[in-house]
Amino acid sequence: MTQSWWLAPAREIDVPAREAALARQQQLTKPAGSLAQLERLAVQLAGLQGREKPSAERLWIAIFAGDHGVVGEGVSAYPQAVTGQMLGNFVNGGAAISVLARQLDAQLDVVDLGTVSPMDLPGVRHLRLGAGTANFVDGPAMHADQGHAALLAGRDSVLRAKAAGCELLVGGEMGIGNTTAASAVACSLLECAAPLLVGPGTGLNAEGVLHKTAVIERGLARHAEHAGDPLGSLFSLGGFEIAALAGAYLACAQEGIVAVVDGFICSVAALVAVRLNPSVRPWLLFGHRGAEPGHRHVLEVLQAEPLLDLGLRLGEGSGAALAVPLVRLACELHNGMATFAEAAVADRPA
Amino acid sequence: MTQSWWLAPAREIDVPAREAALARQQQLTKPAGSLAQLERLAVQLAGLQGREKPSAERLWIAIFAGDHGVVGEGVSAYPQAVTGQMLGNFVNGGAAISVLARQLDAQLDVVDLGTVSPMDLPGVRHLRLGAGTANFVDGPAMHADQGHAALLAGRDSVLRAKAAGCELLVGGEMGIGNTTAASAVACSLLECAAPLLVGPGTGLNAEGVLHKTAVIERGLARHAEHAGDPLGSLFSLGGFEIAALAGAYLACAQEGIVAVVDGFICSVAALVAVRLNPSVRPWLLFGHRGAEPGHRHVLEVLQAEPLLDLGLRLGEGSGAALAVPLVRLACELHNGMATFAEAAVADRPA
Repeated sequence: MTQSWWLAPAREIDVPAREAALARQQQLTKPAGSLAQLERLAVQLAGLQGREKPSAERLWIAIFAGDHGVVGEGVSAYPQAVTGQMLGNFVNGGAAISVLARQLDAQLDVVDLGTVSPMDLPGVRHLRLGAGTANFVDGPAMHADQGHAALLAGRDSVLRAKAAGCELLVGGEMGIGNTTAASAVACSLLECAAPLLVGPGTGLNAEGVLHKTAVIERGLARHAEHAGDPLGSLFSLGGFEIAALAGAYLACAQEGIVAVVDGFICSVAALVAVRLNPSVRPWLLFGHRGAEPGHRHVLEVLQAEPLLDLGLRLGEGSGAALAVPLVRLACELHNGMATFAEAAVADRPA
Repeated sequence: MTQSWWLAPAREIDVPAREAALARQQQLTKPAGSLAQLERLAVQLAGLQGREKPSAERLWIAIFAGDHGVVGEGVSAYPQAVTGQMLGNFVNGGAAISVLARQLDAQLDVVDLGTVSPMDLPGVRHLRLGAGTANFVDGPAMHADQGHAALLAGRDSVLRAKAAGCELLVGGEMGIGNTTAASAVACSLLECAAPLLVGPGTGLNAEGVLHKTAVIERGLARHAEHAGDPLGSLFSLGGFEIAALAGAYLACAQEGIVAVVDGFICSVAALVAVRLNPSVRPWLLFGHRGAEPGHRHVLEVLQAEPLLDLGLRLGEGSGAALAVPLVRLACELHNGMATFAEAAVADRPA
């Protein structure tokens, strides 16, 4: 494999399957278009999965975690040790995403790309790309070798998902400080001012947000040569888990697996993936519009139509997982409803 | 039972259970408030159900159907026979709500309050309150006896649900012409002009909406003496299924069962119930914000915070049913997540 595996095109959309699904929707016993976004979703999935009747039963949830050197600048309300502690909580079943994975009958793949203190937790894949990233105020967050390894770690999870027969993939993240890294990557990639995208993350007050913004502006000034460049922005300002998510979305599109994108951090990773390889875009569903102010902007850039809008700001893939029942029910309605002819119900006069 | 059973107060909220749930939410391994609307929902359910750990597993879906004399004025895009045909589709498993009931493991209770042609379908409760309502342009849509019987039919379904151990109830409706009846009831009750609330229903064009508005204005003029009066507005301009839904919401609150309200028509029935008996309001969750323009206004009047906003306009209880997985997952997250102490995760410094 060359280092630029991410440039290979996404699997092509199956136009006949999409057209057959669209025709089927017009025949189902309901006013045409009355299931709105759920109809469009079923038709989109049919085209992506290459079958008139799509399915989202077999679910894979991949959580990528990593620490962030920029936390040394005081940009988070939580101590950095929480990243590692939450890795334990994920595999022990106590975290939000653990509960959701159980309820949704999903396989949960927990990947530690590098925490400040090396850990050894049963059920976690520890890749140890570094003791967290470096502080992007002082230099690049990661070297290219680390960045490439993180992208591949995302792809590897997708290949495991594919081997397990996965039909839908949710990516999630954990990393104290990662709204700072994600905001910095998005600002660099979109060449926009930090105040447009920076928000409170897990709970900064107004003063904390101002400080976080100033830290990001220092990082953007230091790495200005990468503005507008997806990989350059990702490696100089991002995080291991953000790179892994970008790699996962790229690989999903190439391997023909639909991905549900979670909140702000995941959406920034999706933006990196789409800017690297625009053929990825149709393979991404968006689970929800989160509370972090920058999320709205990134969703608009991606022309995303999220399924939920509940004010969530937890991360871990939780907002994407919460949208999975809607994806499944959209499929079940599409596949299981009777047609006007089957039910002997009169359609509206043409 | 007196005829005014609907004035009996709703079951009281269990404040200690609600407080215990609120305290539990603060201990769970996530940033405080990060699950937003789902946290508020779990705490609300705890107070209503009187237990720190609420549940929404056992689900009852009651569909109320009836025909509308006002269809004679040409206010619907569909032929009136569709009401009865869809009753068959509900029990035969082909309708959207049938698919959703199966997927959600719900009991589906289908009640025909009166269609233009009498029907006899296995699995449907045929109450035959009339051959549909009368045309409200010419006189009251229903007599008081019919209205009282329809309210009681809603209550009877709730009593069946309670006997079956139901923890959550979804009400739905079917009736060609019922956005016209619902708009008329809401305009009369809220004393507002018809154009504010009237919309395309299942698919009228702009000309059709203007005609529908004019028909409603004739009805409002004819029954002006009932403006602002819940029962008067309901009986003079409403439908059997709208009255049954209002009765169901009233009985849910009295019997201690949380109800999920569906779209525009159900929300108008909920408005009638709340105006008749304001103690009902805390027992109502709102599944979604639908496409019908009047729905937004009625939701605002009810100070509702719907769970979904997907542009749905199908009815049958489908939008409420689609929100049920979120209600269930809100409970599971609340009940199943570890606390900071249990998981040995550091909370943010106080």
